[in-house]
Amino acid sequence: MDANKLQSILITGANRGLGLEMVKQLVESGSANCHVYAGCRDPDASKSKPLQELAKKHSKVITVVKLDVTNPTSVSDAAKKVGAHLEGGRLNLLVNNAGILPRGTLQTTTEQDMQSSFDTNVMGPLRVIKEFLPYLCKAAKSCPQPGMSCSKAAVINISTLLGSITKIPETYNFYPAFAYSISKASLNMLNQCSVNEFQKEGIMFVVLHPGWVRTDMGGPEASADIDASESVQGLLKVMRTLTEKQNGAFLDYKGNLLPW
Amino acid sequence: MDANKLQSILITGANRGLGLEMVKQLVESGSANCHVYAGCRDPDASKSKPLQELAKKHSKVITVVKLDVTNPTSVSDAAKKVGAHLEGGRLNLLVNNAGILPRGTLQTTTEQDMQSSFDTNVMGPLRVIKEFLPYLCKAAKSCPQPGMSCSKAAVINISTLLGSITKIPETYNFYPAFAYSISKASLNMLNQCSVNEFQKEGIMFVVLHPGWVRTDMGGPEASADIDASESVQGLLKVMRTLTEKQNGAFLDYKGNLLPW
Ligand SMILES: NC(=O)c1ccc[n+]([C@@H]2O[C@H](COP(=O)([O-])OP(=O)(O)OC[C@H]3O[C@@H](n4cnc5c(N)ncnc54)[C@H](OP(=O)(O)O)[C@@H]3O)[C@@H](O)[C@H]2O)c1
Ligand SMILES: NC(=O)c1ccc[n+]([C@@H]2O[C@H](COP(=O)([O-])OP(=O)(O)OC[C@H]3O[C@@H](n4cnc5c(N)ncnc54)[C@H](OP(=O)(O)O)[C@@H]3O)[C@@H](O)[C@H]2O)c1
Repeated sequence: MDANKLQSILITGANRGLGLEMVKQLVESGSANCHVYAGCRDPDASKSKPLQELAKKHSKVITVVKLDVTNPTSVSDAAKKVGAHLEGGRLNLLVNNAGILPRGTLQTTTEQDMQSSFDTNVMGPLRVIKEFLPYLCKAAKSCPQPGMSCSKAAVINISTLLGSITKIPETYNFYPAFAYSISKASLNMLNQCSVNEFQKEGIMFVVLHPGWVRTDMGGPEASADIDASESVQGLLKVMRTLTEKQNGAFLDYKGNLLPW
Repeated sequence: MDANKLQSILITGANRGLGLEMVKQLVESGSANCHVYAGCRDPDASKSKPLQELAKKHSKVITVVKLDVTNPTSVSDAAKKVGAHLEGGRLNLLVNNAGILPRGTLQTTTEQDMQSSFDTNVMGPLRVIKEFLPYLCKAAKSCPQPGMSCSKAAVINISTLLGSITKIPETYNFYPAFAYSISKASLNMLNQCSVNEFQKEGIMFVVLHPGWVRTDMGGPEASADIDASESVQGLLKVMRTLTEKQNGAFLDYKGNLLPW
């Protein structure tokens, strides 16, 4: 096993934005020796067409998987399907990428905004981790090499600078996203609990911030900093270099450490 | 106005544990020139008897208020009642103390544990802040002194060391409380967003950790470190010394700064 190469990978929210770009770069990198399970809650919708076309072009290495992270049954069905397809039942890498961003301050945020952010951005990753855990454990166990890596067994939780409690004085008034920031701080905590719970199983948990990216979420050219291609190039580069030393780290797409 | 004296105060979850002890120490301190609104979700239940008796003894300075933080109508009804009673509609201090602690790891925590922690420990404080905000704003506005203090206009969010993401490597395996830690990290983020949103209104937001206390939640003598009396003495001492310099701080009952 080459520690610099990724193997079986599940990415949630893979039909557009950063998730789609990640599938693309993984399979088009040439050096790809991986199989990508592209989670997508609405595989037949027109918004999923780009993913379906990519999957058709690379049918041996991409499997589109129906997966709505807010629906427990959908997550467990996806786990059953993917599990049956995985070589030796091993999943090396799970990227919790699916997310939503309701904007607004404490005063303008509704109960519904709070609830849906929590459901998608916190419960979503939790459900996926729980259901795919047996496959991650298998991957970790069957790898003869010591240490941790994304090619062995790892969970990448896609968070954001807006989820850094320390950075709120710099970010909140500039870009208030009350419900989102709370949900991503939760995800960061979820990651750290996981680090401590699954250290002995050899599964790595890392939080990544993709930068401020021009996607449907990040907004158009004039506002966001970088495009999805640059962000994902950075994220994948960081992911390929992660070892047990970064277990529990909060890093941006350039590899810089961020504070909680 | 004496900046060292507390005035109109709302405490949630005041029928037992730390909330009850706080009401007690506030009204029995002798120097008390405050009116305490003691929030309690079940005023007629036997578990609320100690509070009712205390309120009878100090009927001029304690008002028991029916307040279930998980019920939006209960929170808005309480706000109407308290608002009508407040002198000049001014609330100086809100202590978000009500909380629940489901124990367990990622693997043993249920959807229900996650949901109820979120509802009580995050949505609860949020609902109460939203409904009582007009009274806090009035208190801040009507105070001639510059700066911030608990006797002017402040929200104290009772969090915990277990909500410190930084400290999880020290706390999680010793006392795994996955859903609780996530909810309290959320509360910490909620506090920091509030700091930035309400700085201009002159309302202070501080997060306090009461120590590990022998209450129903904290557990019996053998396990927890201190009793409720010692914890609340510390908390009140810290609260009396808070100024705008501590706006947004995460402090324990001894006044030590904790990391996010
Ligand atoms: N863009 C940025 O500037 C930025 C910055 C920091 C962090 N992030 C994080 O990066 C991740 C990806 O963001 P993005 O910019 O690519 O966002 P995006 O363009 O809005 O795409 C979001 C993706 O998540 C999926 N999704 C939403 N809810 C889902 C659910 N219940 N089940 C399954 N999939 C769901 C969407 O699927 P549908 O098409 O079905 O809605 C879509 O594929 C998010 O976690 C986000 O918080 C983004
Ligand atoms: N004890 C510790 O060691 C410790 C350590 C760190 C932080 N804390 C924090 O300190 C705070 C108080 O803890 P404690 O030790 O006093 O806990 P406790 O003895 O279990 O008391 C909890 C209080 O919260 C109330 N409450 C729960 N759900 C409520 C709801 N939906 N609406 C209104 N009130 C509700 C309870 O009322 P009922 O009687 O109706 O249930 C009770 O009055 C909590 O926020 C806790 O997280 C405690």
